Amino acid sequence: MERLPGFRDFYPEPLPHADTWSADARQFIFDKWRNVARRYGFREYDGPPLEPLELFTTKSGEEIVGQLYNFTDKGARAVSLRPEMTPTLARMVAAHERNYKKPIKWFAIPQLFRYERQQKGRLREHFQFNVDLIGETDSAADAELIALLIDTLRAFGLTGQDFVIRLSSRNAWHEFFVSKHGKHENEYEFFQIIDKLERTPKEETEKKLSVLGFSLADVNQFIESGQPTAELENILQNLAARGLGGFVKIDYRVIRGLAYYTGVVFEAFDAKGEFRAIAGGGRYDNLVKLISGGKVNLPALGFGMGDVVLLEILKARGLLPKFDANVDVFVLIEDETLRAPSLKLIQDLRAVGFAVEYSLTPAKPDKQFKRAQELKAAFTAKVESESYVRIRNLKSRDEIVAGFADTANHLR
Amino acid sequence: MERLPGFRDFYPEPLPHADTWSADARQFIFDKWRNVARRYGFREYDGPPLEPLELFTTKSGEEIVGQLYNFTDKGARAVSLRPEMTPTLARMVAAHERNYKKPIKWFAIPQLFRYERQQKGRLREHFQFNVDLIGETDSAADAELIALLIDTLRAFGLTGQDFVIRLSSRNAWHEFFVSKHGKHENEYEFFQIIDKLERTPKEETEKKLSVLGFSLADVNQFIESGQPTAELENILQNLAARGLGGFVKIDYRVIRGLAYYTGVVFEAFDAKGEFRAIAGGGRYDNLVKLISGGKVNLPALGFGMGDVVLLEILKARGLLPKFDANVDVFVLIEDETLRAPSLKLIQDLRAVGFAVEYSLTPAKPDKQFKRAQELKAAFTAKVESESYVRIRNLKSRDEIVAGFADTANHLR
Repeated sequence: MERLPGFRDFYPEPLPHADTWSADARQFIFDKWRNVARRYGFREYDGPPLEPLELFTTKSGEEIVGQLYNFTDKGARAVSLRPEMTPTLARMVAAHERNYKKPIKWFAIPQLFRYERQQKGRLREHFQFNVDLIGETDSAADAELIALLIDTLRAFGLTGQDFVIRLSSRNAWHEFFVSKHGKHENEYEFFQIIDKLERTPKEETEKKLSVLGFSLADVNQFIESGQPTAELENILQNLAARGLGGFVKIDYRVIRGLAYYTGVVFEAFDAKGEFRAIAGGGRYDNLVKLISGGKVNLPALGFGMGDVVLLEILKARGLLPKFDANVDVFVLIEDETLRAPSLKLIQDLRAVGFAVEYSLTPAKPDKQFKRAQELKAAFTAKVESESYVRIRNLKSRDEIVAGFADTANHLR
Repeated sequence: MERLPGFRDFYPEPLPHADTWSADARQFIFDKWRNVARRYGFREYDGPPLEPLELFTTKSGEEIVGQLYNFTDKGARAVSLRPEMTPTLARMVAAHERNYKKPIKWFAIPQLFRYERQQKGRLREHFQFNVDLIGETDSAADAELIALLIDTLRAFGLTGQDFVIRLSSRNAWHEFFVSKHGKHENEYEFFQIIDKLERTPKEETEKKLSVLGFSLADVNQFIESGQPTAELENILQNLAARGLGGFVKIDYRVIRGLAYYTGVVFEAFDAKGEFRAIAGGGRYDNLVKLISGGKVNLPALGFGMGDVVLLEILKARGLLPKFDANVDVFVLIEDETLRAPSLKLIQDLRAVGFAVEYSLTPAKPDKQFKRAQELKAAFTAKVESESYVRIRNLKSRDEIVAGFADTANHLR
């Protein structure tokens, strides 16, 4: 029986097959994400992976349904696996924001699901580091979030040689749009053209822009000027004060496709441009109000970073460690009459935190030792009597005999 | 907009509402689960939360469909959210078992879903610690797994006063069944009667047993004898050698409802009998073969421990810590001309691992200090010039002035 196409099996390393994913690497990534969020004072939350379909159509319109894992449950409810986390976050914040001091600084690591037309190797689920800051309009909040994004990538060993944050703002584009006498009803379409600029033939863009009364030359001039607005200038100065200025550049080609962004937007890219975006985010000051049906109005911003592109880049840069069983001690049982005290030793060592392996059933001494080496155990320990244990450091090959109760002290 | 009935929102503590769950407590539980598994040499794996429906009906029959979140996806596949982990595990093991030395010792922490008729407060999802040992027939494997179960509960501070492992065996019941001349075709039904013994009126059990040619008196005598089989005796001795004998008792009333158990079965219960079972498991030596369509035949055993009953017991015993933001340092910015060096200090402290909070926007000194206290920060730090930082220990109230670059050393 096979798993569904587009879904992943996560195995312990070494991986059995190119078609499988590393559960160890996944946990390595999650741990780093959690650690950086904690340093920035962000708290973890989570919601259900299954939500009312309406939660997602309210935010994104009916057209999103074509990309969802949606169905009717046995209680006749229209439901969907979550394709993104922000609607759930907005729902949860709207329900209980009074309990929390502002700004609310929260993160989550949800698994997200999209039923897209199957392409070779294209995944239908991924995990995403979602970080959001709610209740603060000041651009200091944008800078804080971008700093966290930079430090997240640095936590994996990536440097300014590896990635860049492309910073932009819908407010800047809005000013440009107004200065060129764009009509209000065309603004969203204009943003969509800008969003697709880099992957659309020049002639097509020119034609679409001219329909709205714009010239590609003007657009390109605005992009090339790269002149930061006052708001973006504040963010750049804030990041520079932290020593993070070198990781960010103004790039007005970034505008983000989603309809709900309202101000600053940004994306993290690998410096060589070989991969899809590593992360992206921005302000969505109207979404909490929309999701709460007007009851709660809070400014907000956030970003999402998926596990798949991040993994690709870490692999390409040689920054993904190899993982093993992390066995501290392999207990050798060569004399079966000493199995009972050996089990006691195993229990004692595990009780103080060591990862301990041993052969569950009688096995030849050389087979046990070979297994200890395969597992890359740091030590072997062999009960020699009810009172003594022979300890061997498998790296240095040093051997000592310790008192039974004193064994743990010789394994540090 | 509301979340779906039977699903949970996980919020940071302090919790806003009795109807919400603690994301912090969830992570606390997951961390302990992972830590104990690691000490026992178990490796983490995971599979998709959505699987082909057939994977679950193959194991449990068509009647399970009534309890599933199943639907037809856009590719016309019959799929289901996973109601349990074991079929996925068996599928994954069968696909790649040759890559792994036996015994395979794996664990997972999946979220599981059941669409059961809605009862007040009844959940439709939960998280489960799944620990499995595959490829070993010897009862030493059963003992190893039960030891892990005991140490998992002890890792939360639970003691022999709080819980007991009720150990039983379908082999023992099989011997009883055969000794009383039970007919082979009635054995599964007989097991079901035993499974429901504790929650069925005596008269009803008597009647059902007599149809199969058994007397309740004989059954009760067998249960009361509590005489361990040779296999169970081995497990008891193995656990006794580890000093864990006191946590286990033979209890033949435990037989586990699921059809696929083949040998030793066990459950963890709170000692006072106030809660549902904390964990349950046993041998399922035929399942890998069944799921692999006969291609792979490996003995296996495992247990599952859900997060919900565990949480209830930890709360009842006062063993669940209160969680907060875990802020190490709150940086006070009282002089806005010093915001830039303050941001530098914040960055430096976070870079070496401290969790640092501050006011994103100008705020009165007493408001900032109050916030530091609310967050239970260990220290405040205030940049007094480009060169000096005033550090205050909020517990001892000690104050010192440190050199800017030396600040971190005073926060340990």
